[in-house]
Amino acid sequence: MKTNQQILLKSRPDAVPAPSDFKLVDGNMPVPGAGEILCKTEYLSLDPYMRGQINGRHISGAIHPGEMMRGETVSEVLASNHDDFSPGDFVKHFGGWQAYSVSDGTGMQKLDGRISPRSLALGILGMPGLTAYAGLVHLAEPKAGDTVLVSAASGAVGSMVGQIAKIMGCRVIGIAGQQRKMDWLTDVAGFDGCFNYKDEEPSEAIKRLCPDGVDIYFDNVGGDILDAAMNQLAIGARVILCGLMAQYNTDSPPPGPNPGTIIRARAIVKGLVVYDHFDKQPAFLDKATEWIKSGQIKYVEDVTNGLSHAPDAFCRLMAGGNFGKTIVKL
Amino acid sequence: MKTNQQILLKSRPDAVPAPSDFKLVDGNMPVPGAGEILCKTEYLSLDPYMRGQINGRHISGAIHPGEMMRGETVSEVLASNHDDFSPGDFVKHFGGWQAYSVSDGTGMQKLDGRISPRSLALGILGMPGLTAYAGLVHLAEPKAGDTVLVSAASGAVGSMVGQIAKIMGCRVIGIAGQQRKMDWLTDVAGFDGCFNYKDEEPSEAIKRLCPDGVDIYFDNVGGDILDAAMNQLAIGARVILCGLMAQYNTDSPPPGPNPGTIIRARAIVKGLVVYDHFDKQPAFLDKATEWIKSGQIKYVEDVTNGLSHAPDAFCRLMAGGNFGKTIVKL
Repeated sequence: MKTNQQILLKSRPDAVPAPSDFKLVDGNMPVPGAGEILCKTEYLSLDPYMRGQINGRHISGAIHPGEMMRGETVSEVLASNHDDFSPGDFVKHFGGWQAYSVSDGTGMQKLDGRISPRSLALGILGMPGLTAYAGLVHLAEPKAGDTVLVSAASGAVGSMVGQIAKIMGCRVIGIAGQQRKMDWLTDVAGFDGCFNYKDEEPSEAIKRLCPDGVDIYFDNVGGDILDAAMNQLAIGARVILCGLMAQYNTDSPPPGPNPGTIIRARAIVKGLVVYDHFDKQPAFLDKATEWIKSGQIKYVEDVTNGLSHAPDAFCRLMAGGNFGKTIVKL
Repeated sequence: MKTNQQILLKSRPDAVPAPSDFKLVDGNMPVPGAGEILCKTEYLSLDPYMRGQINGRHISGAIHPGEMMRGETVSEVLASNHDDFSPGDFVKHFGGWQAYSVSDGTGMQKLDGRISPRSLALGILGMPGLTAYAGLVHLAEPKAGDTVLVSAASGAVGSMVGQIAKIMGCRVIGIAGQQRKMDWLTDVAGFDGCFNYKDEEPSEAIKRLCPDGVDIYFDNVGGDILDAAMNQLAIGARVILCGLMAQYNTDSPPPGPNPGTIIRARAIVKGLVVYDHFDKQPAFLDKATEWIKSGQIKYVEDVTNGLSHAPDAFCRLMAGGNFGKTIVKL
């Protein structure tokens, strides 16, 4: 009898997670009931927000030890008792860290035919891409000539923020932690500059690269880099708080930048949660598929083969060792 | 020969300032040159931002030991070589901590005849009032039914924030540090509730008084109270950062709230500097003079008589011992 490989959370790490915090199990093959759909996972998305779920601190809820890891997937419908989905359809849904899933269709979408390769539905054409688009275009409202600074710049969100900002006529500076990421940002993605926060003190580097101040800071990390950016804001700066990579691996939330940095710059700081922006998905997809087709948007995927390697890939992501959108191909 | 009493900064305090950090001197009576105006100070405004100037950290610049303390005054024109001002005019300008001043008219305004008593031009009908109005109405954009929380609530800025919010149909909670301030807020100014941050842990009190979350937090203090408020924000909250009383008496700026508080609430945090909002002064004055006439806005002034007592009054203000807008009458 066919089994269903699944990855469970084994223990809650209090720092950077290790593969031993996860457990691969063989579950029974799920059977779709009335109104339900049986799906086979093709791609699983690995994202930093999952670290918050493991901590019990994410807005979408907690994952407790013994529970299956949750995650967005591109899946193929194998069998369907649901009017909206048929065998052979490719869908995007929260299938989780498993080979097969059963769903009642809640939150399930058929994949837009313009998305190719399909894995992009989990990255720059999916939730991370929409995060970048909604945060930059709708919350930060860039003007041509603005200096835009973005952290975790070669990731799915960061690389889209920077490239959309370039399309909008901004000057774009990226922050990354590996030389190959830096090379890609300036040589391929068209960033105007970048620095490696492991090699150069962020506050010095930001002053050097943004001498007239930062008009928009799109923050995916928090911590010292946020602090440094807040101290170099231009008057009227907009700061989008999107991710907190620097504190996902800690047990208690550390403090943030001094509020005087916000007053001094008359800055506007906005918290971004992509769930509030799903209404912008169609407009985003229309634009972004064209940008990819025309070559204005480049991307890198960090693909790991086989569900059993998902814990390693996730731990690598949480240690900053990935390069591009982290995906598991089943 | 007549002399000009002046108060100089003697030494830069590194904590709460003491009267011994200031020095009263007898200067020569100033003489107006061509195009200049000689003024006699009637009222001097004492404000927390002056602590930032003493530290060299305020946006308006530093005051160094040996220099005269700066400050806004209501003054009477004694002699004028300037076409716009005549002897007998009452004006508002940055006359400083002195009995007489000479000015070339830069930044000097004739007092609006509706302002009575004239000291209100330095308080709820002056810069603090405009700060409250611009920050609340234009930056926080309150809707009827919003829960508005304000710190330093019985001060010139805080009391106007709360009372304008009440006029706009909000539920208003104040934070203060003395029982007589609390009594005034609820019994006179019409606040819906308040708490004494010295008697009750701010995070507990804010949860108790704002059980559905804080829609607007108008912050005049920073520090632990800001931290507590940020942890109780409602979804879509607006936070106006206006003052940092909690850190004016420190040498190095302490950290602020964890940025996760902003993300979780999808909050918008804005830095407020009143200098950006002088264009709103006429509209503000039209409304606020009516509100005072109709009794919708109440006020308290903390008046000290005699310039020589200004250092004591300022030190009391910086220790939270004032009650209402702090003014020196000369």
